[in-house]
Amino acid sequence: MIQDLDDILSVNIKHMKRSAIRELLKLISRPEIISFAGGLPSPESFAVEELKEVIMSVMDKEAALALQYGATEGDTLLRELLVQRYRKLGMDITIDNLIITTASQQALDLIAKMFLNRGDKIIVELPSYLGGLSAFNSYGGEAIGIPMDDHGMRSDLLEAKLAELKKQGIKPKFIYIIPDFQNPAGVTMSEDRRKEIIKIAHKYDILILEDSPYRELRYEGKHQRTLYELDGTGQVIMLCTFSKIFVPGFRIGWVIAHPDILDKIVLGKQATDLCTPAFNQRIAARYIEKGYLDSKIQSIINQYRDKKKVMLDSLEEFMPKGVSWTKPEGGLFLQVTCPESINTNDLLLKAIDQEFVAFVAGSSFYCDGSGLNTMRLNFSYMPADKTHEGIKRLGKVIANELK
Amino acid sequence: MIQDLDDILSVNIKHMKRSAIRELLKLISRPEIISFAGGLPSPESFAVEELKEVIMSVMDKEAALALQYGATEGDTLLRELLVQRYRKLGMDITIDNLIITTASQQALDLIAKMFLNRGDKIIVELPSYLGGLSAFNSYGGEAIGIPMDDHGMRSDLLEAKLAELKKQGIKPKFIYIIPDFQNPAGVTMSEDRRKEIIKIAHKYDILILEDSPYRELRYEGKHQRTLYELDGTGQVIMLCTFSKIFVPGFRIGWVIAHPDILDKIVLGKQATDLCTPAFNQRIAARYIEKGYLDSKIQSIINQYRDKKKVMLDSLEEFMPKGVSWTKPEGGLFLQVTCPESINTNDLLLKAIDQEFVAFVAGSSFYCDGSGLNTMRLNFSYMPADKTHEGIKRLGKVIANELK
Repeated sequence: MIQDLDDILSVNIKHMKRSAIRELLKLISRPEIISFAGGLPSPESFAVEELKEVIMSVMDKEAALALQYGATEGDTLLRELLVQRYRKLGMDITIDNLIITTASQQALDLIAKMFLNRGDKIIVELPSYLGGLSAFNSYGGEAIGIPMDDHGMRSDLLEAKLAELKKQGIKPKFIYIIPDFQNPAGVTMSEDRRKEIIKIAHKYDILILEDSPYRELRYEGKHQRTLYELDGTGQVIMLCTFSKIFVPGFRIGWVIAHPDILDKIVLGKQATDLCTPAFNQRIAARYIEKGYLDSKIQSIINQYRDKKKVMLDSLEEFMPKGVSWTKPEGGLFLQVTCPESINTNDLLLKAIDQEFVAFVAGSSFYCDGSGLNTMRLNFSYMPADKTHEGIKRLGKVIANELK
Repeated sequence: MIQDLDDILSVNIKHMKRSAIRELLKLISRPEIISFAGGLPSPESFAVEELKEVIMSVMDKEAALALQYGATEGDTLLRELLVQRYRKLGMDITIDNLIITTASQQALDLIAKMFLNRGDKIIVELPSYLGGLSAFNSYGGEAIGIPMDDHGMRSDLLEAKLAELKKQGIKPKFIYIIPDFQNPAGVTMSEDRRKEIIKIAHKYDILILEDSPYRELRYEGKHQRTLYELDGTGQVIMLCTFSKIFVPGFRIGWVIAHPDILDKIVLGKQATDLCTPAFNQRIAARYIEKGYLDSKIQSIINQYRDKKKVMLDSLEEFMPKGVSWTKPEGGLFLQVTCPESINTNDLLLKAIDQEFVAFVAGSSFYCDGSGLNTMRLNFSYMPADKTHEGIKRLGKVIANELK
């Protein structure tokens, strides 16, 4: 073994730290623990029988193609079917606006690789998705957090921050936004707010990165147009994934953007994994073609709507006074805010040890280290009875802490 | 769209160029072209029926696990089965020495990410694998090429180069070697040469990156021990893949290395794609468990041995005087060297236009831009009759050029 492994590491890897969530998930895999920590879809959301049928058909009719290397841009049939779905929803895109990635985490990585030199600034929501923050961090990007309210990222604070940075000669590379059922906050950006953010992005000539993994999982409220659609000028890069609406185990996502931007992402992807699994892509394409994606999404929505209701009702029933939470209209997560005296990092250890219940402490989602009294709860994975019991336990832990 | 896309790109992406091979592959996808350009395994090498059986069983018995997110390190069962296979061959590794990647291209990317700051030097074979060169280049790594002979990278020239660099205060981050049936040269490194290279790596305290995608496809000659095994101190990182011995469409590879090194690769992988498809990994694991991998490899060896013989016989029959070629003992490729007067970049255009035959011009494999009179031929993909006809056409194009 060489003498100096730590010395020869790149500057970027030296600055990376392990994902707190993924390490936590290992810790709490014991069956006695009721965990609201992960971001896992429910196994009941997997269309096993439909998938078996589609897979056998692909293996019988097009195995030579599905098992071979594929194009870096992705399977043409899958791209076309996805484009058709968006066009039906009124989005004016063609196949030149869409490429496939190895789930949206790869898209985050490739976009970071494409834009970020060490020290470059990016704007994120406060709080924001940990996987996004860590992808940007892994290329030396420095996140500046803009607080959110019930309508999403505060546009007044965004504008003030961009004006301040401009005075200092600093132009952030992009604004990273999860507009629908945000992770971890559970908040959805209103249309007015979307328009304001886009207007500011135009004014300051900055790209918007719209991360949209949960968009199709809306349980109530009014459908909002995407930032990509509202912009209409190619200034928004939109990231999507099958992980929450089909299966995460396939690792398929896609990017919708201006062809000039996709061209650079493809260049990066060639050197990163050559292509996303052709096998998984072709199965996904045939699954969409058969109409299974749309029908299954409807059943997932029905399942998760009920699960969310159980969690909200349980919070109402068991949370001590002074604790508040967001009421998401879709997605997988909600955010709980405890009184300022509570540090959820400490609380988590007690929750696991004493009450066998787990969540993700909120501070890792805050690029400025704040959010110490918050936590993220996932409501998609646990069965309803366990959710009720888990929230009861969580209420007890918090009540004890407040004594 | 923003005004200044080209201006805001990262320094690294600005320096990347599109893969000549992947662009070429699009150009020559017309059915009338006999192409020796790709690196594709033959569709006949895919065990479709065995795979169908395994997939159905996974879907029936363990769909909830196979369709879900997986661990960043990879499927534990798959890792254990791979470790067992190596242990049977006498390699002393445990599960802590092996992680799964999204094919070995991702491992190249992650290792580049882990070690390379812009301007860092790395040592490569002259010629070397294009995907390796482009992964290193994408993080600003600067490749220094060491010429090869019939026994692989010249150890005398390596030592001289490292001594020279040391005088200048430069220490390359690693030595990148494809020891078995090298891509593109088709050369296998002898055991003596392996030992010399390792000795030099120890002397200069430099890691060796052993890229080993073709190793199990040996058609004749004596099995060589891996650099990883011969070293035995953890100074070698070994990259392996299912792409040539199972199916490329699954995108599964693995890295064998010291746990301290794997720890950093996992850190990078978390931010890059979270995990390799759990679905593909579990199917691969059950496929190995059933004994299909080993039996199928034997049949692939028999197929490709015959295909290689057809190509070598055809080269003997049709190549004009002054043209030479390597005679690989395994793998997928051989290298043809034309008289110095020929530039294979120009020749390729004529070969495609006039004779409907394609290859990869050699110079892209040479980090110093040399190798202009060489080309790489793939013998695994084309059926035997087409290979015979294709080499006939290629001989004609070269003969015309030499007139």
